[in-house]
Amino acid sequence: MTDQSATTGVTDRPSDGDVAGTAARSAERIREHLDGAVPATPCLVMDLTAVRERYAELRAALPDARICYAVKANPMPEVVAALVELGSSFDVASPGEIDLCLEQGADPAAISYGNTIKKRADIARAHAQGVRLFATDSEADLTAIAEAAPGASVFCRVLVANDGSRTPFGRKFGCTPETAVRLLGRAAELGLDACGVSFHIGSQQHDAAAWEHGIAAAHRVFRGAAEHGVRPRLVNLGGGLPAHYTDAAPPLTDYARRIEQALDREFGADRPELLVEPGRRLVGDAGVLRSEVVLVSPDSDGERRWVYLDVGRYNGLAETEGEAITYRLRTSRDGDPVGPVVLAGPTCDGDDVIYQRTRYELPLTLRAGDTVDLLSAGAYTASYASVGFNGFPPLPTRCIDGHERP
Amino acid sequence: MTDQSATTGVTDRPSDGDVAGTAARSAERIREHLDGAVPATPCLVMDLTAVRERYAELRAALPDARICYAVKANPMPEVVAALVELGSSFDVASPGEIDLCLEQGADPAAISYGNTIKKRADIARAHAQGVRLFATDSEADLTAIAEAAPGASVFCRVLVANDGSRTPFGRKFGCTPETAVRLLGRAAELGLDACGVSFHIGSQQHDAAAWEHGIAAAHRVFRGAAEHGVRPRLVNLGGGLPAHYTDAAPPLTDYARRIEQALDREFGADRPELLVEPGRRLVGDAGVLRSEVVLVSPDSDGERRWVYLDVGRYNGLAETEGEAITYRLRTSRDGDPVGPVVLAGPTCDGDDVIYQRTRYELPLTLRAGDTVDLLSAGAYTASYASVGFNGFPPLPTRCIDGHERP
Repeated sequence: MTDQSATTGVTDRPSDGDVAGTAARSAERIREHLDGAVPATPCLVMDLTAVRERYAELRAALPDARICYAVKANPMPEVVAALVELGSSFDVASPGEIDLCLEQGADPAAISYGNTIKKRADIARAHAQGVRLFATDSEADLTAIAEAAPGASVFCRVLVANDGSRTPFGRKFGCTPETAVRLLGRAAELGLDACGVSFHIGSQQHDAAAWEHGIAAAHRVFRGAAEHGVRPRLVNLGGGLPAHYTDAAPPLTDYARRIEQALDREFGADRPELLVEPGRRLVGDAGVLRSEVVLVSPDSDGERRWVYLDVGRYNGLAETEGEAITYRLRTSRDGDPVGPVVLAGPTCDGDDVIYQRTRYELPLTLRAGDTVDLLSAGAYTASYASVGFNGFPPLPTRCIDGHERP
Repeated sequence: MTDQSATTGVTDRPSDGDVAGTAARSAERIREHLDGAVPATPCLVMDLTAVRERYAELRAALPDARICYAVKANPMPEVVAALVELGSSFDVASPGEIDLCLEQGADPAAISYGNTIKKRADIARAHAQGVRLFATDSEADLTAIAEAAPGASVFCRVLVANDGSRTPFGRKFGCTPETAVRLLGRAAELGLDACGVSFHIGSQQHDAAAWEHGIAAAHRVFRGAAEHGVRPRLVNLGGGLPAHYTDAAPPLTDYARRIEQALDREFGADRPELLVEPGRRLVGDAGVLRSEVVLVSPDSDGERRWVYLDVGRYNGLAETEGEAITYRLRTSRDGDPVGPVVLAGPTCDGDDVIYQRTRYELPLTLRAGDTVDLLSAGAYTASYASVGFNGFPPLPTRCIDGHERP
């Protein structure tokens, strides 16, 4: 019984050993825990060993990049603490995430306030806590930083294409390279350290070449800024490195090689400092979300069974919106003959459907009370859960690593 | 300064006096409260007086229908308590909602367990608490009800078209009339009270005639069941009655008239008992969500300003997914000249954009620190908020009615 057997019919392209290996080993460790502990479902279990493996892999693949874990992907205190221990830095989006990192022992100098949308009061609070690195992409935000965090370092986010991403960003963040040149110049005038350029090629990026455009854009900004006497030194490569869903992404080494080649091509000997913001990459494959089948019923058209789980879009599976992220599944009936299903969540909400267009096949024997595990579900699940939509509580979480949370 | 002024450019069709009147008066009372109390933003304020007005209107429009408030729309204890006091019944989706209603003084006999997706243990728990009315639409669920709630009353949900709904249900719930006839017959065999038929024409329904198909389908089921010796007596008209967003819906009296006409046409003298499940209708217009502008910045194409608020899709505005629900807006700069904007939330998530396709215009003078009120935001907001995505806390709520929640 393998962890792919529940999703026969879903294209599962060959994957590299490291991605599938860590995910499979972690899923097996978590299965052992779940089968022993039998927690109430739904429940997300994180395997800290897998988080550490992913961190070590990335450290090896991009040895001179500063790793800033994107806390938003999974803000469980144990996850943050494990990464503090490994020497990780942190990419945060809010005062709440700053507090969390500091509470888990992070050095404020290891925190990058990566949200370009910030209240002035929140900038001042971060500055008072010792945070010195801020993202920006607009004049208004830059002015607020200059006033509330005098002398801080700022990097400017440029907008790049998100082709190949399963969850692209649209136009919400980033400015043109021309604007970035102007903003970095303005930052220097305002007494800030205009330290660099960032971009984000979209989350769960399946095209290892996607970073090339961003690195080229960053180089254009470096050149433009230099013409105005400003000398940025940092390229923030953002996030986008993948976890292992049904359609596997290229191996990490492919991404690292393409990034290194682009850096060589654009910057040559003037190699910039590097920063990378992995979120999904570090925690996605380290989590398993165990759910229970609530109901199996025929569709009114008779073609597919509807399988209703006790987890859905509003209590953990927000990223199944638009069926963007397709989790691998494992059931307590794996090995039995399978047939096509629609998967849905437990609420009275018509949009609480998990997979309808994506073809999933599950055992024909599946019935109420059986378990369905969503694999590689460690990123963007528990923290997206609603406070209590339809009266269902938020997704409980626990870690395995010799100690457990209640 | 009217509550429409912030959304010039959005089509605002003429509305009935009652809808606009209650919403406008409530929005004004809440403004007075907010301007005095100045709570931290974002914040949802509910006006219990408006909830009571909406209840009384519906009571008058459908005098012989049992009103079951759909708790999911707004599960604030004060709202539930106010409706208990008015003699309302309740449509619940989960054990959590049953507990909430009982805690607020509801009689278990006034609770309808309207979710067709239920764990057997949850059915048993509800039955032990005194709940005696259950929705169903499948053999498996019906069997679970018969075993865990012996002798209970069940109504069978049929699938009907959702044209005209702003948030249609798809195929997740309901069976064909033919299956409903079979299930009601089976319910009787299992010793249950096969009491009726339900349907749902989709939430925020703008076509007052939409109920006609459901009533016709219910009548077909009544006839088919009678041929098997089963005599259902209840038609559950579901929800769908609208709140007052930018494109106003017809007046409630139109809906009531079309429903009465359809009942006369289909059932004639054999008029069934009626049940209605308003959620949005009772609470939508009774709430105002106050937010603060975090940042205003030009788009990289230079055409529209991006206005970033401290509330977005993950901390209260879930129903702006797909821009399905378009709230009316009120700003602290209303009256100043306006221009087109994109509205977005505060997180680092590219999908946290509120309105991009829908044309909204806001004052050109709008800047960080100004307030933007989302009007008629009492339904499907706070309870959808995430537990802490991106580190932003859930949406705080409060009520005005002589007493307040901290």
